[in-house]
Amino acid sequence: MDSSRAYARSLDRQDALAGYREQFFISNDDMVYMDGNSLGRLPRDTMQRVQQVVEQQWGANLIRSWGDNWFEAATRVGDKIGAFVGAAPGQVAVSDSTTVNLFKLAMAALILRPGRSKIVTDAFNFPSDLYVLQGCNRLLNDRCRIQVVPSGDGISADLDNTLAAIDEDTALVTLSHVVFKSGYLYDAAVITRRAHEQGALVLWDLSHSVGAVPVVLDEWGADFAVGCTYKYLNGGPGAPAFLYVNRALQGEALSPIWGWFGDTAPFAFDLDYRPADGIRRFLAGTPPILSTLAMESGVDLLAEAGIARLRAKSIALTGYMIDLVDALLAAHGFSLGTPRDAARRGSHVSVRHPEGYRINRALIEEMNVLPDFREPDNLRLGLAPLYTSFEDVWQAVERIRVVMVEGRYRRYPTTRAAVT
Amino acid sequence: MDSSRAYARSLDRQDALAGYREQFFISNDDMVYMDGNSLGRLPRDTMQRVQQVVEQQWGANLIRSWGDNWFEAATRVGDKIGAFVGAAPGQVAVSDSTTVNLFKLAMAALILRPGRSKIVTDAFNFPSDLYVLQGCNRLLNDRCRIQVVPSGDGISADLDNTLAAIDEDTALVTLSHVVFKSGYLYDAAVITRRAHEQGALVLWDLSHSVGAVPVVLDEWGADFAVGCTYKYLNGGPGAPAFLYVNRALQGEALSPIWGWFGDTAPFAFDLDYRPADGIRRFLAGTPPILSTLAMESGVDLLAEAGIARLRAKSIALTGYMIDLVDALLAAHGFSLGTPRDAARRGSHVSVRHPEGYRINRALIEEMNVLPDFREPDNLRLGLAPLYTSFEDVWQAVERIRVVMVEGRYRRYPTTRAAVT
Repeated sequence: MDSSRAYARSLDRQDALAGYREQFFISNDDMVYMDGNSLGRLPRDTMQRVQQVVEQQWGANLIRSWGDNWFEAATRVGDKIGAFVGAAPGQVAVSDSTTVNLFKLAMAALILRPGRSKIVTDAFNFPSDLYVLQGCNRLLNDRCRIQVVPSGDGISADLDNTLAAIDEDTALVTLSHVVFKSGYLYDAAVITRRAHEQGALVLWDLSHSVGAVPVVLDEWGADFAVGCTYKYLNGGPGAPAFLYVNRALQGEALSPIWGWFGDTAPFAFDLDYRPADGIRRFLAGTPPILSTLAMESGVDLLAEAGIARLRAKSIALTGYMIDLVDALLAAHGFSLGTPRDAARRGSHVSVRHPEGYRINRALIEEMNVLPDFREPDNLRLGLAPLYTSFEDVWQAVERIRVVMVEGRYRRYPTTRAAVT
Repeated sequence: MDSSRAYARSLDRQDALAGYREQFFISNDDMVYMDGNSLGRLPRDTMQRVQQVVEQQWGANLIRSWGDNWFEAATRVGDKIGAFVGAAPGQVAVSDSTTVNLFKLAMAALILRPGRSKIVTDAFNFPSDLYVLQGCNRLLNDRCRIQVVPSGDGISADLDNTLAAIDEDTALVTLSHVVFKSGYLYDAAVITRRAHEQGALVLWDLSHSVGAVPVVLDEWGADFAVGCTYKYLNGGPGAPAFLYVNRALQGEALSPIWGWFGDTAPFAFDLDYRPADGIRRFLAGTPPILSTLAMESGVDLLAEAGIARLRAKSIALTGYMIDLVDALLAAHGFSLGTPRDAARRGSHVSVRHPEGYRINRALIEEMNVLPDFREPDNLRLGLAPLYTSFEDVWQAVERIRVVMVEGRYRRYPTTRAAVT
């Protein structure tokens, strides 16, 4: 392969999405930002949008904005995200956090399958998802066994194992579509089909998928899904999450959290809860307006770019990075922590090294590279197709190489600072 | 009484908090804003604060801001609110919505009292709170009876009735400290004492109290509390809520929603949930950073003004309004829907009229007054001591009088538009 910077630049010149980079606020051109899979960059339009919501809608228009556009914001923006994840209108809402939404939908699913005693998930899943399941099960008096399928070689799932775990005693299958450490991408259609054959319900966590890989919830026949909006959707730190409930389940499924925004007539102030028809019954309290509207610019940008082009660039970026890792970093003790098969990977690349923690520190402190580190040895490099350039990829790998050649990581302690 | 505008102006000249009005964004000087109990005004500092968080912390500093100040934001801002509600540090966190927080704490309480089968609340409580209790009880297989104490004369609680409902079978007592329609203010110390004598736990909803009336959670010995930040705290539309858990209960009480931000080591990514020590275990997913930091300016302003001065002005404002209602509106068929005893009322005044719905419409459409309407006949007039002037109060009553004298409300339909 050609590992020159000039080649990276030639790839950028041929990039159909290159123009989108200018749509983002970039204050430091030398910074190599490799963490868009954790916190997406700030869209320039979002700055104006936030100011307009704060000053005009809140400051000037005050309570009247509820009638003007706030009351419908959760489902209106939800439908925009829905269009992006293959969901027909009326099945997606913006609401709460990913964790809270997962709680709502996992409980709804478990209550819909009262006679079954197994939850299937895997060790690749984001720990918060596992914690939610453990908490749900506790509320149900430990009715279920949570089968955590081992994570195969740590890079790719052993799909046969996962499929075999789903049986006629399974109430719920819930997995991360793209897993947070290795970036492995599940075949959601196959899993969903197997679950339905066994009478189980399926809940997908799309946090690392949405905005980066194609998601077609209706086509899969998915029952439930949740996802994060502050990664590839660029919604801002801690922006509210989204949830999907297949229309076929909206009549019988019920949120465990009964709140006024999920009531059929919130402003009638009746004393007894009557769940709203449709997706609104999965809302709980007053929606987070400022952050729901702030995320809209990011969603619009992605929709305009289109998932086909985003996915094509994502595969090109991750493939290029893998080639560079092989060419420049393997000799320094790095191994790839991400599937080589493009069809089975999302939009980040994990590279593994026994000194990963210290290397990450050196990159941040000295090299103006922002990756992140995931225990025990993963440097995670997120490539956001809307604004990551091929030259960014080249720079990231080159600066890692410099850290290794110059031994810069050795200045940092091997012990992790406790996160308190 | 002196019902002249000049007198209102003289009261403003003597108002120790008059200077705070300038700290808020006011785009339309003729508007009489009477809905600060529903959505507080925008503090001017919040505009700069939001811009700084968006552009500097998110846009420029990106993921590094988690380490700089985001990770601690929920508890740091929580402690600021805590100081304002009589809670020693480490007992309050900003998190989720009021509804979700109420769900977490009500479930925690019910699980701590497994042998008891009664929840005591009242018909004054905000309906979403009742819905949450109904949902919790459903999850517990309808273990409890929810005793909804009737709302007395519709204005003030029959305290003896409420106290009598609390018995040795009561697991949880939960009430709105200031009730949303009439503005009745409960004696929280008396209720809490009675509950504890009977071995029950108490959960206060402070949504209509915080920022307007004195709250001393530790002194009351309250077990749990939740509250809204977008009313008198001026946190912005749908801003995240806060929760309080008395330190004495933080070891045994557990949130039903187990998420990574409530785990003892979120970034260790262990597969099994281990609840954090302290208030952090009641967090769930990634905190809503933008809106948590946006609320800080509003909280700081209130803290600077101090609850003693805020309460004194609130009583003066509501007392003045009641006098004007008696003098100018009683003759037009209005009755007072709020306690006359200042010690028993919060910071809004309800006035009742059979044509309340149409009068509210006329005020909004023609008179540039923004109150709100609550079924069946309440015009709710919120008086926020930090920015509502005595002249605002005079203007509101005078414009209502004009609507009545000129019969303007008759132009509007009597049927409510369905809220969809």
